[in-house]
Amino acid sequence: MNYRMLRYLLGCILLIEAILLLLPLATAMIYKEDILPFVYTICILLVISVPCVLLKPKNTHIYAREGFICVSAAWILLSVFGALPFVFSGVIPNFIDALFETVSGFTTTGASILTAVEGFPRSILFWRSFTHWVGGMGVLVFMLAILPSAGGEAIHLMRAEVPGPTKGKLVPKMRQTALILYGIYIVLTCIEFIALLLCGFPLYDSIVTSFATAGTGGFSVLNNSIAGYANPAAEWVIAVFMILFGINFNLFFLVLIGKAKEALKSEELKVYLGVIAVSVVVVSLNIFHLIGNLGDSVRTAFFQVASIMTTTGFVTVEFNDWPVLSKTILTLLMIIGACAGSTAGGLKISRILILFKNIFREIKHMIRPRSVNVVRVDGEVISDETVRSATGYLTVYMLAIVICVVLISIDGYSMETNITATLSCINNIGPALGDLGAMGNFSVFSPFSKVVLTLAMLLGRLEFVPMIVFFSPYAWKKR
Amino acid sequence: MNYRMLRYLLGCILLIEAILLLLPLATAMIYKEDILPFVYTICILLVISVPCVLLKPKNTHIYAREGFICVSAAWILLSVFGALPFVFSGVIPNFIDALFETVSGFTTTGASILTAVEGFPRSILFWRSFTHWVGGMGVLVFMLAILPSAGGEAIHLMRAEVPGPTKGKLVPKMRQTALILYGIYIVLTCIEFIALLLCGFPLYDSIVTSFATAGTGGFSVLNNSIAGYANPAAEWVIAVFMILFGINFNLFFLVLIGKAKEALKSEELKVYLGVIAVSVVVVSLNIFHLIGNLGDSVRTAFFQVASIMTTTGFVTVEFNDWPVLSKTILTLLMIIGACAGSTAGGLKISRILILFKNIFREIKHMIRPRSVNVVRVDGEVISDETVRSATGYLTVYMLAIVICVVLISIDGYSMETNITATLSCINNIGPALGDLGAMGNFSVFSPFSKVVLTLAMLLGRLEFVPMIVFFSPYAWKKR
Repeated sequence: MNYRMLRYLLGCILLIEAILLLLPLATAMIYKEDILPFVYTICILLVISVPCVLLKPKNTHIYAREGFICVSAAWILLSVFGALPFVFSGVIPNFIDALFETVSGFTTTGASILTAVEGFPRSILFWRSFTHWVGGMGVLVFMLAILPSAGGEAIHLMRAEVPGPTKGKLVPKMRQTALILYGIYIVLTCIEFIALLLCGFPLYDSIVTSFATAGTGGFSVLNNSIAGYANPAAEWVIAVFMILFGINFNLFFLVLIGKAKEALKSEELKVYLGVIAVSVVVVSLNIFHLIGNLGDSVRTAFFQVASIMTTTGFVTVEFNDWPVLSKTILTLLMIIGACAGSTAGGLKISRILILFKNIFREIKHMIRPRSVNVVRVDGEVISDETVRSATGYLTVYMLAIVICVVLISIDGYSMETNITATLSCINNIGPALGDLGAMGNFSVFSPFSKVVLTLAMLLGRLEFVPMIVFFSPYAWKKR
Repeated sequence: MNYRMLRYLLGCILLIEAILLLLPLATAMIYKEDILPFVYTICILLVISVPCVLLKPKNTHIYAREGFICVSAAWILLSVFGALPFVFSGVIPNFIDALFETVSGFTTTGASILTAVEGFPRSILFWRSFTHWVGGMGVLVFMLAILPSAGGEAIHLMRAEVPGPTKGKLVPKMRQTALILYGIYIVLTCIEFIALLLCGFPLYDSIVTSFATAGTGGFSVLNNSIAGYANPAAEWVIAVFMILFGINFNLFFLVLIGKAKEALKSEELKVYLGVIAVSVVVVSLNIFHLIGNLGDSVRTAFFQVASIMTTTGFVTVEFNDWPVLSKTILTLLMIIGACAGSTAGGLKISRILILFKNIFREIKHMIRPRSVNVVRVDGEVISDETVRSATGYLTVYMLAIVICVVLISIDGYSMETNITATLSCINNIGPALGDLGAMGNFSVFSPFSKVVLTLAMLLGRLEFVPMIVFFSPYAWKKR
């Protein structure tokens, strides 16, 4: 284990967090709010990170396991220090609650323990939404984009933070890949910001809503989420951008380099848009009698389907009162998630495609044991290792859901609540059903359940492996 | 496709069903009830089956796909004709309901559309419970045991009807294996029958309860299931036998040939008993405040845990009123199921063991990509093909659950109801939670949902592959 390099990398991450905190600090200055929560946090981060960064090790080589451990430690540290402004400002005095909120932010979950957010300092809410934007694309990807020294170790960090069955490399150099990803991310966020301004959103609300959409997070600065704006045009804009941020960023890159045709051929994209279309039709018809107007039914269904499937979690309606068919479809969309290589969570379409095609292969093999069958996506043969990793992922995913549901069921809320709260956290969505409700929040849970759900959010965001490696004694043993 | 051999085999199966129907016919004679429902059914079966059996084909060779198709067709035909006595007697005049009840019987599910059974003819209820016993070990296994001609085709039939990740062969000859399995099955059933008589159960009730326990079915002849007897001693006896019938029959065979030590070393057995023990402790403590007496709490918890985990489905208490932690544990036990090679359903412990160990192997591989790791159960290396089949099974299993939940959610019952009803049917358990309740039943569902759940029971009992092959055009295509 290259501890020196780990210390150096983690120092860099914390230094970056200190720099990122300058933005909410500036917000506090603009709105003449208390700047001390941010100043204190930045000072603490600098005291810890600067010595680590100055001591750059000679041997910068790391292996896969250091990559996993570094990413896990980075996310845990970022969350622990990122929670401090909430505590210092008194907005969330309890540290466990503040940690839950921060992890929910960085993991782009958007589940909140705050029952009402209106009236809180704008700088604090800015930081809360900004964590979505930072966590959406990944902090280590950001580090790779700005650190010129990113060499051989980069691939392990990128693989650990941007997992999924697809290839993460757009161009041969990791640093350029990271730069391109963040470039697309920033441009799309800016376009949404302008579109929201045009829809009549205030400047501040446009910024924070764009952050939360881009990261597929879901924190809002109104108590009633997007419903609070009562702005149908903005609902369409946000819904479309949620869907855009749920698309594999590789496809945007293909469009950029003039290969739009190739991008449109993507099986994952077709399935993604197909599932959205079918869900919107079924839900619209199913909730029509509640809303009474086809246009509003379609808009509401479209917004909610997009919000849940992209694991964003914005809400325009109390869908806990919807018929059970619609609630079941939303729950199913929670599991499916959006495309790999996007900022969204869930099982991810490409993984589900591989799992599906693998079933057909196995069945074909059983019917005709001597025939040779392979799994293909977009015409390319998927290696057995990728298939194995997808089926293994499903196992871990189911196991994590089961354990989490059992542990939080100790609190005694309904089974629907526990299942949807777990799915909401593991898939980084935000809202749940049952006792929590779409607008409801996670403050009702016991501290123990909050810790469990906090871990679930981290596990889900990093797609399990880094956190499992981090907590497994096998990884820390010497060879 | 060897259609002639298929026709011959299916003829044999229907002839066997006609012979099996002689038992309820005899019961009707003993209790002086209407014998016509059975006479009519037997006549229909004979008219169809005898010509098929007389025309024995020259080429008796079949391949894997014919095995799957034969088993699926056999189970569907057995259920269709097995439903006739219910219709003819007027006990269940609606054919869809009668088919649901018969499939529930043969698949050893025990889910019922009858709201009350007391007062119905004893011969009809005998047939209802007897289907559990017949379906538990498998009708085709029975055929293999009694047909002297069982040759090369036997392995394909046995594999399709008694699936699971463990080896099905006890001895080199399939016919002897089938004979040994049925021998153990009959002896255990007889011991339970005698034990129940000793506990003070009436003769008739001892017989039908033993049938339902042996097949891990769960149909009872009292409206309140086993609770109706208010016989604590019998509850202990039934609970212990449920657990015994959930053990891999290979282990009983090992005990028979004097290798008891080897049987006790089985990892699957240890996990099985361990899960039962932990569940009983947690549930006992969790329901203690409802019952107020440690002895009764433990007995109730033990009975219910054994009943759900072995997928039997007998009930001694309305566990729908239990705290959500206990209900969640029971739901989890529904999914786990008992041992492979038993009469029970569910994912099966040995499959879960393989899935678990595969996770560890994948994680180890990720930490140290160059290390060589294998999955071992009971010290033996599990082939990659078996691991792949287990992970593929999990995918199909999850997919089937999701589709079933969405389809029956159209009826509008609560999500808890739909999820537990689906789990109950796919895992062949019987009771569910929510709007159905432990003692509740499936009569509330629409005919469409009943058909969906009927298919779910068949899919689960045959572990998906045979039914998928049966309904897949690929299998019927000529090479």
